[in-house]
Amino acid sequence: MTSTNHSKHIAIAGAGLVGSLLAIYLRKRNYTVTVFERRSDMRRSDYVGGRSINLALSNRGIRALEEVGLAEELKRIAIPMHGRMMHDVNSNLNYQAYGKEGQYINSISRSALNIALMNEAEKIGAEFHFNQKIEKTNLDKTTLTLQNEHQQFTEKSFDLIIGADGAFSAVRDAFRISDRFDYQQFYIEHGYKELCIPPGKAGAFQLEKHALHIWPRESFMLIALPNPDGSFTLTLFFPFEGNPSFDTLDSRTAVKNFFEKNFPDATTLMPEYLDDFDRNPTSSLVVVKCYPWVKNKSLLIGDAAHAIVPFYGQGMNAGFEDCRVLNQLLDEHNDNWDNVLPVFQKLRKPDGDAIAQLALDNFIEMRDLVADQDFLLRKKIEAKLHALYPTQWIPLYSMVTFHENIRYSDAYSTGQKQKKIMDEVMSQPGIERNWEQLNFQDIIAKLGR
Amino acid sequence: MTSTNHSKHIAIAGAGLVGSLLAIYLRKRNYTVTVFERRSDMRRSDYVGGRSINLALSNRGIRALEEVGLAEELKRIAIPMHGRMMHDVNSNLNYQAYGKEGQYINSISRSALNIALMNEAEKIGAEFHFNQKIEKTNLDKTTLTLQNEHQQFTEKSFDLIIGADGAFSAVRDAFRISDRFDYQQFYIEHGYKELCIPPGKAGAFQLEKHALHIWPRESFMLIALPNPDGSFTLTLFFPFEGNPSFDTLDSRTAVKNFFEKNFPDATTLMPEYLDDFDRNPTSSLVVVKCYPWVKNKSLLIGDAAHAIVPFYGQGMNAGFEDCRVLNQLLDEHNDNWDNVLPVFQKLRKPDGDAIAQLALDNFIEMRDLVADQDFLLRKKIEAKLHALYPTQWIPLYSMVTFHENIRYSDAYSTGQKQKKIMDEVMSQPGIERNWEQLNFQDIIAKLGR
Repeated sequence: MTSTNHSKHIAIAGAGLVGSLLAIYLRKRNYTVTVFERRSDMRRSDYVGGRSINLALSNRGIRALEEVGLAEELKRIAIPMHGRMMHDVNSNLNYQAYGKEGQYINSISRSALNIALMNEAEKIGAEFHFNQKIEKTNLDKTTLTLQNEHQQFTEKSFDLIIGADGAFSAVRDAFRISDRFDYQQFYIEHGYKELCIPPGKAGAFQLEKHALHIWPRESFMLIALPNPDGSFTLTLFFPFEGNPSFDTLDSRTAVKNFFEKNFPDATTLMPEYLDDFDRNPTSSLVVVKCYPWVKNKSLLIGDAAHAIVPFYGQGMNAGFEDCRVLNQLLDEHNDNWDNVLPVFQKLRKPDGDAIAQLALDNFIEMRDLVADQDFLLRKKIEAKLHALYPTQWIPLYSMVTFHENIRYSDAYSTGQKQKKIMDEVMSQPGIERNWEQLNFQDIIAKLGR
Repeated sequence: MTSTNHSKHIAIAGAGLVGSLLAIYLRKRNYTVTVFERRSDMRRSDYVGGRSINLALSNRGIRALEEVGLAEELKRIAIPMHGRMMHDVNSNLNYQAYGKEGQYINSISRSALNIALMNEAEKIGAEFHFNQKIEKTNLDKTTLTLQNEHQQFTEKSFDLIIGADGAFSAVRDAFRISDRFDYQQFYIEHGYKELCIPPGKAGAFQLEKHALHIWPRESFMLIALPNPDGSFTLTLFFPFEGNPSFDTLDSRTAVKNFFEKNFPDATTLMPEYLDDFDRNPTSSLVVVKCYPWVKNKSLLIGDAAHAIVPFYGQGMNAGFEDCRVLNQLLDEHNDNWDNVLPVFQKLRKPDGDAIAQLALDNFIEMRDLVADQDFLLRKKIEAKLHALYPTQWIPLYSMVTFHENIRYSDAYSTGQKQKKIMDEVMSQPGIERNWEQLNFQDIIAKLGR
């Protein structure tokens, strides 16, 4: 089958993480693949980036990278984070492992990962065209009208167009104005701003290297992920309006007072935070849901189909999983796209919806609950259940992050069931004293009901 | 204040019902008003329409028409419909009044109404430009880039731009790609197709003239509204997919069998329905929600801000009410738009959301519940409550349709409360026999809780 694939020309919109990975998958199946990217080539020295600096790569993403043979290379530039390190307002630390021994997520540079994927895709024959703005997608004729940096327009025809061009997908615009396309975009009340803790002496990490740091402050939070050079990239997730908010931090003094009060330990490690706060943009956070993802010979994938908030560290991982699942369906259906496309969207839509909701829910957990005693006890009881019944009770975070064989939608519904059971357990009087005497077998039995 | 208004130039996008009414309101306040319409002038003989033929005009819409002095003129071309006439599969009729004596809705021709509004707006000085496609709205500069029928582009600057250009608003496109704009469009599973019962001999009405006719068939329905020439415009609301659906009616024989089985009485009155079914388009039904409705000096209004399904007959009425409320706020704030715009959107958003939900709910009532014995009993009990306590218990349909002083959002929440109380009443054993012995005062008392 793949011997004839090369005569099929597939256009991928977007040379981001998902577009580049997809180019590798499809080249490996011997399709003719051309990638069109609105921005310039990030491998050029004059590139100006527009996205977050580092990402959390976890099992779902790694599985896809393994399939295309890049996992080992990329793990070498990633920093394992084995748990959350919580910082309270008095600079006390509290550590919570993400999972069992040997389970961890990985801080990785967005650009390094993207460049590795583009290099590999090009090496095996995918063509990349940069500075190409998609002016129009014709879903009936499967054509793209592209505008280059000289404002010249060309129309190109393909056998298949895949929109991997992110949360603000241009390909999706054609879907949106077609009949019977359901579409939703909504912004959460929080925005974010990136800041930095530079490396210490001789590239030393000034906070615990192998953790994701959180300063949970109920209505907002600061987080930090380590970078290979010893620095940490910090992100403040903060309301746009209200008090406190980006609105109220309207002077250097206001910013200074806010940081010193809320993040005293981090503040002492950020000599340039006041300038950074001024200079760095305040960005919004959007959720996008839509359906169908397929119209004629065009497909939406990754953020273009399901953009989510970053609080589960699953945006990229979900996009990579899309690519892996698509590739698997092409295997199963002998590259018959007419069969694959409808199956793909039907299979993946519930998973996209599930991770969108999980990511929203996890924001509350990260910024508020992780500092809550009841919540920590709940986690402790769940860890015990998992230790006693490792295949029957897998905590939600583990299902999502470490169990790439469990679909997001199944993780979500199992998580709902677990929550109901744990609400009951936690309502028992004196639970904080006698939780070790719980009848754990009884609790497990409730899962089956 | 209005003496200086004429120096303020307001652009209205869309010469539909809402855009034309708004042009009148704003001209009466002495603003300079220019209306840009994508289509050609419907007053010209070569106009090809694209929308439903008649509409239900009710109190909210009439109140706005009264304010601009057109109510009496327009009532003369409207046909009062005092209730629903239900047709069962055996052609039995069942009549249900919409409200009390003297309360009715009005079947009116969309084009006649629109033309009357345009004529009045022009008469008092609004300028209308047809065949003007909005290519771009610049929300920062308050400019419109317009494309005329000769594909020529012009950019025009205004003091205010109002998008009254309907469910697929071009002005809204600029909102949608601006930061932090929440937007949702979704299509219901049903589409619609218009058909016709021609006048009988000498322009006789072949069905009861003063009723809205419904053929409720649970998963679908046919409705009919009278026209002044003795004809009825019928609309089949029918699923796109499934069985039966537009999909399965794939031959003249299939259409014929379906109509004869489901609508025997209507079918005998429609000599050309097979041709009509073939010729007339199958249209989809979209709901649009978004927020904010204001960005800088631009405003969305009517369907552009809140497109709803037609099952409450409130789409136009809600749009007219938008205009009336906006005009009232301009009165209250001495034409200070900087104050009016934020107040307007905050006030009207919950009402737009409420009528959107009510319209969706009413589809189920119209196509299914109106043929249900329990439902009819429920209505009877509610009518009795209303007769006994006319100001305390107003049935939901009446609040929405006949009580223009009750906000949609208040009608919705009161309706929710009433429903809960009536669910309880209806669950009493033997209610169908002993409903007249209910303690109605007790029921009313529950409303206050």
